[in-house]
Amino acid sequence: MHILVIGAAGMVGRKLVAALAANSQINGSPIEQLTLVDIVEPAAPQGFAGKTTLTAVDLSSAGAAANLIAARPDLIFHLAAIVSGEAEADFEKGYRVNLDGTRLLFEAIRLEAKHAPYCPKLVFTSSIAVFGAPLPETIGDTHHHTPLTSYGTQKAIGELLLADYSRRGFLDGIGIRLPTIVVRPGKPNKAASGFFSNILREPLSGLEAVLPVEKSVRHWFASPRAAVRFLIHAAGLETASLGSRRSLSMPGLSATVDEEIEALRRLAGEKAVALIRFESDEAIAKMVAGWPQNFDASRAIALGFRAETSFDEIIRAHVEDELEGVIRS
Amino acid sequence: MHILVIGAAGMVGRKLVAALAANSQINGSPIEQLTLVDIVEPAAPQGFAGKTTLTAVDLSSAGAAANLIAARPDLIFHLAAIVSGEAEADFEKGYRVNLDGTRLLFEAIRLEAKHAPYCPKLVFTSSIAVFGAPLPETIGDTHHHTPLTSYGTQKAIGELLLADYSRRGFLDGIGIRLPTIVVRPGKPNKAASGFFSNILREPLSGLEAVLPVEKSVRHWFASPRAAVRFLIHAAGLETASLGSRRSLSMPGLSATVDEEIEALRRLAGEKAVALIRFESDEAIAKMVAGWPQNFDASRAIALGFRAETSFDEIIRAHVEDELEGVIRS
Repeated sequence: MHILVIGAAGMVGRKLVAALAANSQINGSPIEQLTLVDIVEPAAPQGFAGKTTLTAVDLSSAGAAANLIAARPDLIFHLAAIVSGEAEADFEKGYRVNLDGTRLLFEAIRLEAKHAPYCPKLVFTSSIAVFGAPLPETIGDTHHHTPLTSYGTQKAIGELLLADYSRRGFLDGIGIRLPTIVVRPGKPNKAASGFFSNILREPLSGLEAVLPVEKSVRHWFASPRAAVRFLIHAAGLETASLGSRRSLSMPGLSATVDEEIEALRRLAGEKAVALIRFESDEAIAKMVAGWPQNFDASRAIALGFRAETSFDEIIRAHVEDELEGVIRS
Repeated sequence: MHILVIGAAGMVGRKLVAALAANSQINGSPIEQLTLVDIVEPAAPQGFAGKTTLTAVDLSSAGAAANLIAARPDLIFHLAAIVSGEAEADFEKGYRVNLDGTRLLFEAIRLEAKHAPYCPKLVFTSSIAVFGAPLPETIGDTHHHTPLTSYGTQKAIGELLLADYSRRGFLDGIGIRLPTIVVRPGKPNKAASGFFSNILREPLSGLEAVLPVEKSVRHWFASPRAAVRFLIHAAGLETASLGSRRSLSMPGLSATVDEEIEALRRLAGEKAVALIRFESDEAIAKMVAGWPQNFDASRAIALGFRAETSFDEIIRAHVEDELEGVIRS
């Protein structure tokens, strides 16, 4: 099997590639070739015996998608996107990369089939940003998409295109709406949602972290490990079971910041919790107030997708995967 | 006020232009200029004292949208679209006209504001084709969009773009999802929904018509007269009342074919009803089975939109507007 990963240098992309390379198979099929693409050249995965191609290219540039598709990958993970904050700050760049890039990829696949039959499996990462306030307490699978950001708009359009191209038989698509991923490894960044990770990751390494919102704030979470599991499970799903509804809200954990902190207290003690400093940020609090708090992901659960059910699990995954099992607080 | 109507040669476009020209004002504002655009040159309206410009152009062709927007119309009606059947038959043409055409128009407006402030009111005609089976018996304002045609996909994307461009302050948009319009004037056409009009229009003129589905089929209707009212009312709405949800399902009449025929019987007699011949068409019946049957349009009704409440009213509107008050059956 030849797998193309677009967005392979991102956080989820790197973890997905590491898992694919380590297993050398996906859902029982051996992987012969990995083509890894991002705007910067992705790192070569460790311990993969098959052929690896590393490419740095902007998916929205002329001919880029057609070049990638000319090799006729069997399975495509399309994870590439300008993130929410940047798509909001740079309107043209967000639409170019997130909308045009996605559409050019789908078009390249459609046009490739004009030479000889071709209909690859395509896993598209969408986002819960397709939903926007006012929202019900629990968001069901038939709730409408009213994104409140350009990023969410571009993801919602991607879902619509994915469904139409799949219905037409041009590709075999599945879209998965990822929860907010915690604990994100690396340094604190300026993403509005960053604090959900910061207040765990930093104390677990003995460092201070800032909490900009009230502890009563509720949100929707899954670990990076769960995200990789979702992607791999989606790639193996028989899409007939999806009918015409090709995108799914992934399962996750609905929890408050308070529950997050209590899990930290259980696993890393008072000393870790003491490293969290409350510093109110009205701008962040206002944004977060419009975010989803809980989902009814029963459709995805029925299809076999599984997420963590407690913050203890999410923290343990981080300690195992990123800290070699050692809490340093 | 300078009004630009794109899609002015279509059925609804012509009726809208006739109403604007006849009144020489819209929602209390005098109309000085009408720019009428379509893929073929629209007819000049009767009795309009202001300036009229007639243009035949493909909105998706290079520079077309920018040329139209350079004149800085105050109000834009964007009705132009490749219809459902053609967008399904010609994938590329449907996406080019319905998606690219709409996006190019919105982009031309955004870019025009770089010279000097500009934020026109824009009324976009969407469609109930943004919804697809499985559907609830009554479709509420928060039901998700799962179009089952490329046309419906393109309209759903148009709604998303309209909301994002409005949120960003590039234009002041409102989208209205029209019910199936009956009685369509003119000849029977090959649209799958055509029979809903044919079985009234033809008998009212003493001609035979074919009914391809069971009389129990229920669907969602409004007259051409109501469609024009919706457009004009939308143009006058204070969009602050819409919040971030810029598109609305219009009110309509949920009725069965049987109710349609009974209204015909009341207004035109047994002789008219006898002109309807039942001739089952499995392909049409299958398509129609996936169509919406009823909507909860309470949001639009609260905003002052009004449709017919019986088929008698819909038939009377047709007899008055198209048959000079005379039933010929």
